[in-house]
Amino acid sequence: MKIALDAMGGDHAPRETVQGALLAVRDAELLQMAPDLQVVLVGRKEDIEKELAGVSDAIRKSLPVLDAREVVEMGESPAQACKQKRDSSIVRCAGLVKNHEVDATVSAGNSGAAMAAALMMCGRIDGVLRPAIVTMVPTINGYSVLVDAGANVDSKAKHLLQFALMGEVFARIVLNFKSPRVGLLSIGEEESKGNELVFETQALLKKVPLNYIGNVEGRDTVNGQCDVTVCDGFVGNVALKAIEGVGELVMTGLAREIKSNLITLIGGLIARPAFKRFKKHVDWREFGGAPLLGIDGLNLISHGKSDAFAIKNAIRMALRCVSRDMNGVLKEQINKYGQVSDKPDTPKPTGA
Amino acid sequence: MKIALDAMGGDHAPRETVQGALLAVRDAELLQMAPDLQVVLVGRKEDIEKELAGVSDAIRKSLPVLDAREVVEMGESPAQACKQKRDSSIVRCAGLVKNHEVDATVSAGNSGAAMAAALMMCGRIDGVLRPAIVTMVPTINGYSVLVDAGANVDSKAKHLLQFALMGEVFARIVLNFKSPRVGLLSIGEEESKGNELVFETQALLKKVPLNYIGNVEGRDTVNGQCDVTVCDGFVGNVALKAIEGVGELVMTGLAREIKSNLITLIGGLIARPAFKRFKKHVDWREFGGAPLLGIDGLNLISHGKSDAFAIKNAIRMALRCVSRDMNGVLKEQINKYGQVSDKPDTPKPTGA
Repeated sequence: MKIALDAMGGDHAPRETVQGALLAVRDAELLQMAPDLQVVLVGRKEDIEKELAGVSDAIRKSLPVLDAREVVEMGESPAQACKQKRDSSIVRCAGLVKNHEVDATVSAGNSGAAMAAALMMCGRIDGVLRPAIVTMVPTINGYSVLVDAGANVDSKAKHLLQFALMGEVFARIVLNFKSPRVGLLSIGEEESKGNELVFETQALLKKVPLNYIGNVEGRDTVNGQCDVTVCDGFVGNVALKAIEGVGELVMTGLAREIKSNLITLIGGLIARPAFKRFKKHVDWREFGGAPLLGIDGLNLISHGKSDAFAIKNAIRMALRCVSRDMNGVLKEQINKYGQVSDKPDTPKPTGA
Repeated sequence: MKIALDAMGGDHAPRETVQGALLAVRDAELLQMAPDLQVVLVGRKEDIEKELAGVSDAIRKSLPVLDAREVVEMGESPAQACKQKRDSSIVRCAGLVKNHEVDATVSAGNSGAAMAAALMMCGRIDGVLRPAIVTMVPTINGYSVLVDAGANVDSKAKHLLQFALMGEVFARIVLNFKSPRVGLLSIGEEESKGNELVFETQALLKKVPLNYIGNVEGRDTVNGQCDVTVCDGFVGNVALKAIEGVGELVMTGLAREIKSNLITLIGGLIARPAFKRFKKHVDWREFGGAPLLGIDGLNLISHGKSDAFAIKNAIRMALRCVSRDMNGVLKEQINKYGQVSDKPDTPKPTGA
């Protein structure tokens, strides 16, 4: 199996990306999934080679390098950058997927640009109106997924229907949820609570064979009451960043109170392993990345802050998507249940 | 000063509401603000009297009882319940404000019904298109306010402009923020990131003399980068409930990890005062309640879970709103800067 890695993508590239690829091709779990695993390192050859200094030839066989001279920066306008920088690592990665030279690609770079490159090179799966970003959110006993996390604003009901179908496939096929509970994000659990978009989407979701549990609230995404939270990308992105913000607030605030006094500091030090276990539980790096849903080819995105550990896990996620043929199942579902309009919209990537 | 309290409103009424009123009329801080403070207890006389058993005559003079025979329950449809239950505590409270028999009212009951009752009895301030719910959100060094927290869905730019103006007045006049930073909730800080509503609202917010800091993200409401977060009520309500949910997730998850092992449990017990200090810092009960913004009369709502401590603090908030003439300043601002359309919309209370 071959995964293309955008070696130049992310705040800590190429050091952490290359280290992540190294972790991946040495990882027993990943090698069990794909004994022939190769991670193609895409980016400026000389920069990548520097990071590979000292790596044995045996390992280097699993890490071919593909020279790509340009880099899309985090602040660049996604669509424009992808059009102009055809030799950027992010565009080249999507091109490898399109040409079936690799099975999937992973990028921790500008996520808007990753979406734009994927759209430009691979295009949408037949019948998909707008590709979506799915993300994993920790809950008390595991995690749930939220879709769309920011690829689309001003979505319509037909888009939310497809987000639901695609998110459900990801949760069921890739993440092993059995009959995932699909909830429509709203401002109350009663069917009468919501906005126009919610009311229109309710009608569509009732007609498809999903384990649809009706409206859910902002808290249900994190309390384990819902496995797949469906929403417009504006709402999803706001909610997600609020969730991240509160997580930071609580951990920082608690740490400050604990350190403010010698006694509680001692208590905090003794309790430290518990804090560490909890942090690990809510650590996004454990998931690593997620596929762009609705793209005709497996393009995964990872957090800009990714370190080697996150990159390795994103590669693991890519392997899972490939080996379980996520896109095959997704095509079928969209084909069967996702067609409420025959005229695909122009996608509206926001770069968020 | 006279405050009407919906004695029947909230999950723990009338016990906690009456106890809260008792705390208020005995509280040194509140009595300094209003030496003649009276809290009118509105609700079923016999139920209230039972809670007042044993209270001295001197104190009871500060706690007149107004008999109201009906109660609006938490699950009822707000508008319908208010129309049908004219003798409910929640409607009678708003009526007392309308007739200037009290200076303000506080209810921890069905917040949709509180809004409906306030609209029905007091009406909107001249020029206000849609009243809004404002709420306080803890941040690392204090708190910020978010408006609208769920009164209005499918808002337009002219509504968000007014939410901004009203939220700023509340923050500045009642909460003592100096030149509060007003941010428009979006999916990126760059002006180019957002949905149609955001782009239209940006244009309006730039024209008014607010300390407008542009787009803010979901995390900025909790990280202290923004004092007044402005958004549609659907988005605000989703974000708020996500924030509450994560707070619970982190505290519950940490507690579980700490208790899972004897050593960390001991550490946790030693560090307990730090946890308590942090919990107090993020405790919504410290604020107690907030006024419905844009109603022609001070109607405050409090959390359905309010206990006596929260009710007392909601009464304190009411005193502040009265003594600082929040609505006088608000009228002026709406008059001067809030008029982009002369045709008031029909408000669309959602009951969330």
